[in-house]
Amino acid sequence: MNRQELTDIVYRKKSVLCVGLDSEYAKIPAHIREGRSIEDAVFEFNKEVVDATINYTVAYKPNLAFYEAMGLPGWSALYRTVAYIRSLNEPVFIIADAKRADIGNTSRLYASSFFGDGKTTPDFDAVTVAPYMGKDSVSPFLSFEGKWVILLALTSNPGADDFQLTETPDGMQLFERVLEQSKQWGNAENMMYVVGATRAEMLRKVRAIVPDNFLLIPGVGAQGGDLNEVLKNGWNKSGGLLINASRSIIFAASGVDFATAAADEAARMQKEMARFINQL
Amino acid sequence: MNRQELTDIVYRKKSVLCVGLDSEYAKIPAHIREGRSIEDAVFEFNKEVVDATINYTVAYKPNLAFYEAMGLPGWSALYRTVAYIRSLNEPVFIIADAKRADIGNTSRLYASSFFGDGKTTPDFDAVTVAPYMGKDSVSPFLSFEGKWVILLALTSNPGADDFQLTETPDGMQLFERVLEQSKQWGNAENMMYVVGATRAEMLRKVRAIVPDNFLLIPGVGAQGGDLNEVLKNGWNKSGGLLINASRSIIFAASGVDFATAAADEAARMQKEMARFINQL
Repeated sequence: MNRQELTDIVYRKKSVLCVGLDSEYAKIPAHIREGRSIEDAVFEFNKEVVDATINYTVAYKPNLAFYEAMGLPGWSALYRTVAYIRSLNEPVFIIADAKRADIGNTSRLYASSFFGDGKTTPDFDAVTVAPYMGKDSVSPFLSFEGKWVILLALTSNPGADDFQLTETPDGMQLFERVLEQSKQWGNAENMMYVVGATRAEMLRKVRAIVPDNFLLIPGVGAQGGDLNEVLKNGWNKSGGLLINASRSIIFAASGVDFATAAADEAARMQKEMARFINQL
Repeated sequence: MNRQELTDIVYRKKSVLCVGLDSEYAKIPAHIREGRSIEDAVFEFNKEVVDATINYTVAYKPNLAFYEAMGLPGWSALYRTVAYIRSLNEPVFIIADAKRADIGNTSRLYASSFFGDGKTTPDFDAVTVAPYMGKDSVSPFLSFEGKWVILLALTSNPGADDFQLTETPDGMQLFERVLEQSKQWGNAENMMYVVGATRAEMLRKVRAIVPDNFLLIPGVGAQGGDLNEVLKNGWNKSGGLLINASRSIIFAASGVDFATAAADEAARMQKEMARFINQL
């Protein structure tokens, strides 16, 4: 999916909502788990969450840790989930939150793992990538037409302070240097950035360096970021934002009403986004 | 496996060799692929490589990209390979070269993915971890008795220069700061570091900060690092080194003699290591 297509969805749905499919097996409602294999239960849960939320949502983002922790049934449930979303008559952006990166030769294999044929390997639109190993670890992901790297810049966890805020000789902090340098590797048509919403005031710093790129914003919802602050400081003319909420939506309720509760919470966030977009 | 057990293997085998099982399907000899499914071919290839090299080897390191790129059959071949190595009457260290890391909650799931029960999820001894997200992304891996984090410090690829060599305010380069800071998180009993052999002169800098930890050294062999330089600059009283070679061993030959060729190349490297260890 290219940038114009993504922007079209944002304006049509009046939403920049990304739903994080962090589908930890133990948290899946009992009635879904009952009588089903792990693989089938996770898939069914995801399917019902997607069906309930897709009207309010521009993107889905499974975090691969939750699937890898279940072994083969987890991988299978993940691949089936991506295939299911693709089978719907509704264009939607799908992110592999995998935080991969390796030496160039090996990153090429990761890229083919995520930008696959939809049969042997899933056909995500984007993959999150860690910047520590530099250019040749990121570039292999950038040569796929209509596919995206989402590079970690400033994450939403406490440990972000350990290295990302380190001062570098040119007066920038490391995350700013990552933004600045990576502009040489890709552009607003194939590169987005992760910027944690727990520090919305930092969004202005980020926007000063990458005004045109989409930003993936985790940390709204369970992690406490303020939605309106993010919209105000992060929005650009393409939309420019994918605001992720995971647990606050998919585990909004734990009973038979979980899908309705997920829909309600997604709708609530989308309404707030629509209010912002309508007054532009 | 704890540090003493690893050291015992190093001295008994007179080796610090780690064989990288980067088993790209297209490079597997034709006679192994013929008449086998992808999963079975990859597993059979790994099994024959392991059988041929285990006398010279203290560790195996599958890079997960090569398996993920094959989809489910790849994951299955990987898990079977780990289980096969575990089934041998020969204690050996197994590394998931996965370069994972995420926010604390999620890293906990990654840890359980790699330090599993050997049934649903594989029971690796160690996993490579990227430092960019800081302490809470690394700590969850450190709470497993006898298991290890191998933190990326200085990698062997060209992109290592982009951020790892960046100067920080205290006069250290970023990779030195990663070493220094991570000493607060773990110790020589649960933390190793990746240090690329393509810059053996940097090993002295690394050893000045982490004299006691084991170092995983990629980049010897196909990537051109000098084995003797690495031994001289990296060795400590525990051994302190795992020197990895991948393609130069597992793809030493492409015909029916591939396993013999792998054994010969592993033996050649082990002999050089033994010569160094014998003159200590």
